[in-house]
Amino acid sequence: MTRTLILGGARSGKSSYAERLAIESGKEVVYIATASASDSEMAERIRHHRASRPVEWITVEEPLALGNQLLRWSAPERLILVDCLTLWLGNLLFSSGEEYPEVGTITLPPLFHEQQDMLASALTRCSSDVILVSNEVGMGIMPMGAISRCFMDEQGRLNQAMAALCDRAVLVAAGLPLVLKGAPC
Amino acid sequence: MTRTLILGGARSGKSSYAERLAIESGKEVVYIATASASDSEMAERIRHHRASRPVEWITVEEPLALGNQLLRWSAPERLILVDCLTLWLGNLLFSSGEEYPEVGTITLPPLFHEQQDMLASALTRCSSDVILVSNEVGMGIMPMGAISRCFMDEQGRLNQAMAALCDRAVLVAAGLPLVLKGAPC
Amino acid sequence: MTRTLILGGARSGKSSYAERLAIESGKEVVYIATASASDSEMAERIRHHRASRPVEWITVEEPLALGNQLLRWSAPERLILVDCLTLWLGNLLFSSGEEYPEVGTITLPPLFHEQQDMLASALTRCSSDVILVSNEVGMGIMPMGAISRCFMDEQGRLNQAMAALCDRAVLVAAGLPLVLKGAPC
Repeated sequence: MTRTLILGGARSGKSSYAERLAIESGKEVVYIATASASDSEMAERIRHHRASRPVEWITVEEPLALGNQLLRWSAPERLILVDCLTLWLGNLLFSSGEEYPEVGTITLPPLFHEQQDMLASALTRCSSDVILVSNEVGMGIMPMGAISRCFMDEQGRLNQAMAALCDRAVLVAAGLPLVLKGAPC
Repeated sequence: MTRTLILGGARSGKSSYAERLAIESGKEVVYIATASASDSEMAERIRHHRASRPVEWITVEEPLALGNQLLRWSAPERLILVDCLTLWLGNLLFSSGEEYPEVGTITLPPLFHEQQDMLASALTRCSSDVILVSNEVGMGIMPMGAISRCFMDEQGRLNQAMAALCDRAVLVAAGLPLVLKGAPC
Repeated sequence: MTRTLILGGARSGKSSYAERLAIESGKEVVYIATASASDSEMAERIRHHRASRPVEWITVEEPLALGNQLLRWSAPERLILVDCLTLWLGNLLFSSGEEYPEVGTITLPPLFHEQQDMLASALTRCSSDVILVSNEVGMGIMPMGAISRCFMDEQGRLNQAMAALCDRAVLVAAGLPLVLKGAPC
């Protein structure tokens, strides 16, 4: 099985690119959506994305237990597409209604690292092809708020960890891939 | 004719890179500046850029009707350099003195999508070589304000649309190109 | 001697990548840290980084006079690793306790350009291999404050200048390099 990380900025076309890869695989596709429709803007984004996906795909909504879902749907004939790790990381960060201070040290909930460890472990044990979609968020000016800086750091760490576990990685800009690792896809 | 998209961050050297391509083409160059000198900082940036360009270039200032200008100057022996789509998108967004809310849904002026459609159409019909310069703005932390998020989304969509219509696309960092599409240039 | 620029976003893995290159060189390594432990968050980052470096490296802390240090440690059998130019640029910007206005024109201290000129000059005269680590900060939404915009511009200009003087340059994302210039490393 092949593990692929699709990195890209906001509105970079990374989701469309990942979906094209999934279609071209010819495998049965399980699409794991990490978004939760917490407000109208997000609900609209979810609708917009869903309308563009093939109807035969199995869609699973999972805001938190991503590792469990990878193991649950694991099968050699399948491809599991996770879109995206950035919303998932945000879900973990705010999972138990935490409020974070504007300045100073951020204390992360235990779930935060537990679920990331479970994803890493599941990724190495899953017998399906896996495509992970994630945002590049570290190439702008450092944000002022403590929680934004924490998020930027944690997203960067997660992207590095996932890239190390994947066979292929690309950075998407304007819908087009730059190969970071593995064969062009 | 060849259509080229030059993407890059702020102060990435994307304009200088595009100007070098234009000079090396050996063609008559029409330079379309989308900047309007709305404040002293912008006026200074415009002066700084202009001083670096060859005197024989035809310079056209066009904040809004970019598609029209592409057709007006269309000629096989010419190269049209547009710098840049990001200022143009900002001009369209604030074209009729709109004020946008800090939160909630943004309603874009009709001009906003009309002019983008006209650019796409003109780009496919223009008989000149065209170089489009545009900013990559989606690789930082998601900004808080509704209009900044809207701008980030729309810039990303525009970059994807232009990249799809272009024969070549590069992402410039520190003055150096990464090839996204087509032959190295 | 070889000069290498390692560009990358925050938490992109650029420091680890640079450190791996330094180890693989087999040379005596002088590590120049530009960070100053001005607050507890930064002190923690410094501790975290230091723990990951080989004990036999010579560590030099230099917040401002980077060019001088390159010449001081210059020797053909050495590799000098500078981490990072972004903290250094921030140090120069705030070197004499300046307070900058929220809007309007920023007047930079004389030291700001003097030290950058000295770095460029020293880089061309240094007989050691040199690796420079620097942040890509221009690929997000333009920040609102005048000093943040100034920093973004100046970082972009510095990255362009350093890339022009280096034999090799890479952009790191998720710990993986995209080659901007020179041979893959």
